[in-house]
Amino acid sequence: MENDIKLFKETRAKIKAYGYFTWLMSWDQETEAPKGSVEYRTKQYEIIATEMYHVESNPAYLEAIERLYQNLDQLGDPDFKTEIKKTYKGLRVIKLVPMNEYIDYQVLTSQGSHIWAQAKEENNFELFRPTLEKIVEFNRKLVKYLETDELKGYDILLDFFEEGFGVKEYDLFFDTLKRDLVPFVMEVTARKPKTFNRKLSKSVFPALQQKAFSHYLMDVFSYNKNHGLLKESAHPFTSGVTSTDTRITTHYHEDQLASSIFSTIHEMGHAIYEMQNDLKYDDTFLHGGTSLGIHESQSRMYENMIGRSKVFWDLHYPKLVELFPKQLKNIEVDEFLAYINQAKRSLIRIEADELTYALHVMVRYELEKQLIKGTLKVKDLPKKWNQLMKAYVGIRPKTDREGVLQDIHWSGGAIGYFPTYALGSAYAAQMYQAMNKELDIEKAIAENNIKAINEWLKIHVHQFAGSKTPKEILQICSQEDFNPHYYVEYLKAKFR
Amino acid sequence: MENDIKLFKETRAKIKAYGYFTWLMSWDQETEAPKGSVEYRTKQYEIIATEMYHVESNPAYLEAIERLYQNLDQLGDPDFKTEIKKTYKGLRVIKLVPMNEYIDYQVLTSQGSHIWAQAKEENNFELFRPTLEKIVEFNRKLVKYLETDELKGYDILLDFFEEGFGVKEYDLFFDTLKRDLVPFVMEVTARKPKTFNRKLSKSVFPALQQKAFSHYLMDVFSYNKNHGLLKESAHPFTSGVTSTDTRITTHYHEDQLASSIFSTIHEMGHAIYEMQNDLKYDDTFLHGGTSLGIHESQSRMYENMIGRSKVFWDLHYPKLVELFPKQLKNIEVDEFLAYINQAKRSLIRIEADELTYALHVMVRYELEKQLIKGTLKVKDLPKKWNQLMKAYVGIRPKTDREGVLQDIHWSGGAIGYFPTYALGSAYAAQMYQAMNKELDIEKAIAENNIKAINEWLKIHVHQFAGSKTPKEILQICSQEDFNPHYYVEYLKAKFR
Repeated sequence: MENDIKLFKETRAKIKAYGYFTWLMSWDQETEAPKGSVEYRTKQYEIIATEMYHVESNPAYLEAIERLYQNLDQLGDPDFKTEIKKTYKGLRVIKLVPMNEYIDYQVLTSQGSHIWAQAKEENNFELFRPTLEKIVEFNRKLVKYLETDELKGYDILLDFFEEGFGVKEYDLFFDTLKRDLVPFVMEVTARKPKTFNRKLSKSVFPALQQKAFSHYLMDVFSYNKNHGLLKESAHPFTSGVTSTDTRITTHYHEDQLASSIFSTIHEMGHAIYEMQNDLKYDDTFLHGGTSLGIHESQSRMYENMIGRSKVFWDLHYPKLVELFPKQLKNIEVDEFLAYINQAKRSLIRIEADELTYALHVMVRYELEKQLIKGTLKVKDLPKKWNQLMKAYVGIRPKTDREGVLQDIHWSGGAIGYFPTYALGSAYAAQMYQAMNKELDIEKAIAENNIKAINEWLKIHVHQFAGSKTPKEILQICSQEDFNPHYYVEYLKAKFR
Repeated sequence: MENDIKLFKETRAKIKAYGYFTWLMSWDQETEAPKGSVEYRTKQYEIIATEMYHVESNPAYLEAIERLYQNLDQLGDPDFKTEIKKTYKGLRVIKLVPMNEYIDYQVLTSQGSHIWAQAKEENNFELFRPTLEKIVEFNRKLVKYLETDELKGYDILLDFFEEGFGVKEYDLFFDTLKRDLVPFVMEVTARKPKTFNRKLSKSVFPALQQKAFSHYLMDVFSYNKNHGLLKESAHPFTSGVTSTDTRITTHYHEDQLASSIFSTIHEMGHAIYEMQNDLKYDDTFLHGGTSLGIHESQSRMYENMIGRSKVFWDLHYPKLVELFPKQLKNIEVDEFLAYINQAKRSLIRIEADELTYALHVMVRYELEKQLIKGTLKVKDLPKKWNQLMKAYVGIRPKTDREGVLQDIHWSGGAIGYFPTYALGSAYAAQMYQAMNKELDIEKAIAENNIKAINEWLKIHVHQFAGSKTPKEILQICSQEDFNPHYYVEYLKAKFR
């Protein structure tokens, strides 16, 4: 037992060290590496990945994990138990799926994004169909290999991305949205859209001033610059390797003012979560957050619930006007607020607003569920997509490019991932309401004291890293199971 | 034999891959990594360094190199022969020095820079003396362990840093400087210094405009942005890992205009050298340049011989005035030229001008030679330093901080390194004169065609990477052995 623990910890240290270098390589690549350096870098990466594979697949290490898992009860430290459970779970795929099928699938999904990109470019679903069929087929076999008494079918895929959340939980969630949110959205989005001062959409907003405002926001949100930094990249992202090194990026579009503001705040939500993980998890596999859903709850709470609130902009709008005096001349804060909180029916998920976003996700959930169950064929996917879009969002795509081909996820094999996007906002609403009982959130924002919000989230969510499940986190911070009611109420109150 | 070659190449690939990651880590650390991330990074680095050590010290690999070296004649490819020779030479230290002494020395030199920094801070040579005595003592033992029929004493240390250059070569070089340059420098620097328009030294030169000019210079020098980038760091440096990824940094001091300009050009000299290494060396240990001296010759040729020339500024000064219209108002190009080409007696090597620089190096060479020979004791070093400064540069330091304690090099064990700094400029003068026979350099500069200069250097110097010795490079590009005469003539012509 002691030897097994020792071997586990030694191997973990090596895996973390290799992980550090691949993390850094990817950060460099996404933010600044010269274009022409890709070939050499890829070659070095392949060599390191092979070394890392030998470390991770060392039979003695795998056997040690197996034995530790069989003797979980004898491990005193609950965090260590959790780590062994998670590691064991991750290794089940390698153990139970025939090696040749697994490798074929890796090859298939690594090529998938190129084929998808071409199909999207050409608006030609048929080009992507054979690949997607194979991906769905593999996932249907995969869930057979991995099924247990507790988990079967689509549940297994959903659980990969959000532990403890299966069809039962999601059905309850999305049924609530269908019943309470869809009619409300149809009503709100049927109204004639408000018109705004043309300067908001037609001005040029120089990158330098946008950057200055993003740096101002870093201070407003108490983002710890000693443990992170803000840079630029094509698509904004958070890249954290430890609580002391969690970096973010944003993108400055000079024809759009809001984009960089809300990207920066969104990524700070992700980053502050990881920065506030307890330090003791830095050297374990538990650092980084417990799930995609909880992660997204933090980014969306910061972006939408704090960052798009009236109280926030009453305080910070003057700073924005100071940086863009001509562009924002004669535009009052309330007009700006209405501008950044518009709700309308739209086709593209990543451009959707706060009100309609979850409904885009619901479309994908329904389709995945049926694909894995076998009640929907890939060839019928575009038609079904368009039907559901009309039913849930109230708008029907004219092309597959704006419909079923819009997202990259399936082409890389990510089935079961999408639903976590919708969970995030719903978790956030539940957490916000719980926090508000102990801390006057609007007052904290108005007093430029977001630090107090960070502190509450640290104690109730962030510190735990991956040591608690999403369900446990919700219980800790709200003394309640997941309850989508708060989310619907929040949206109704805001967009009524 | 074939197995040995195979093992060598496989191990080389791994060493290069680990090298890539440590390169990237150090680049990140020097340019942007958040301060608070150092502890975690160091821990990961130690783990990777241990893995790398196992790869490099694998007995089968060491035996393969030994056998390949014994059978050099049977290796057809001359580049491969050179690589085996260099690798073997590098391993001699590990083979011939007793392990405990070697490790003690590593510890000593890793702590040395802290002790030196404190001694410099406090202007207290006695604090540094015991450490420096141990370092000198080890190097005196080291040369005994490593001596061969051909190389003995200080020659061994000098050869580490500049293959083929020992006391014989350096004495010839520095004797020439003593005889022909020192009297000239004394005469020139005795003149009353010219006074310049106060705006040159008292204006503020905003970093943003300096940056714009550095980027302009990248185009002027045809620095390949597809294979590199320019960033900022505390001290400017070049960091290359392959011909397709060679990055540079500079530093913008808003109270100094010239600093960033000449740092950028200097680093481009280093970078263009490595970028123009033949691609075939990317995967070998030969990529990167043949020696410190040849490397420095490129940076100094670009910086001083091209970048400080009249013909260069006649073309590019208007661009500088465009960026700094107020600061450079009423300052003609000739005054600017005189300003950036001042020569005066000074105490600090890294701030010395083109004319006096080599004399600072000569002081260090004389001292090192005597320390290793044993004719000078460390305790007498400060006194001797001050005497030589007076004799060669014409000025005597008042404190050790401005004298013997100014440089970090010895504290890290680098004895034999300094002389390469002076070689660089002398090589450059010899190369320039040779190039000028085939290419009208001033015409190329005047026609904004530095590309033609890069091209000549690529063919005669850069492409060979580490496959030729410095002496061979000089023969190839000038059909002559090293001849410091060109250097003295160049300086006399310029500063007369």
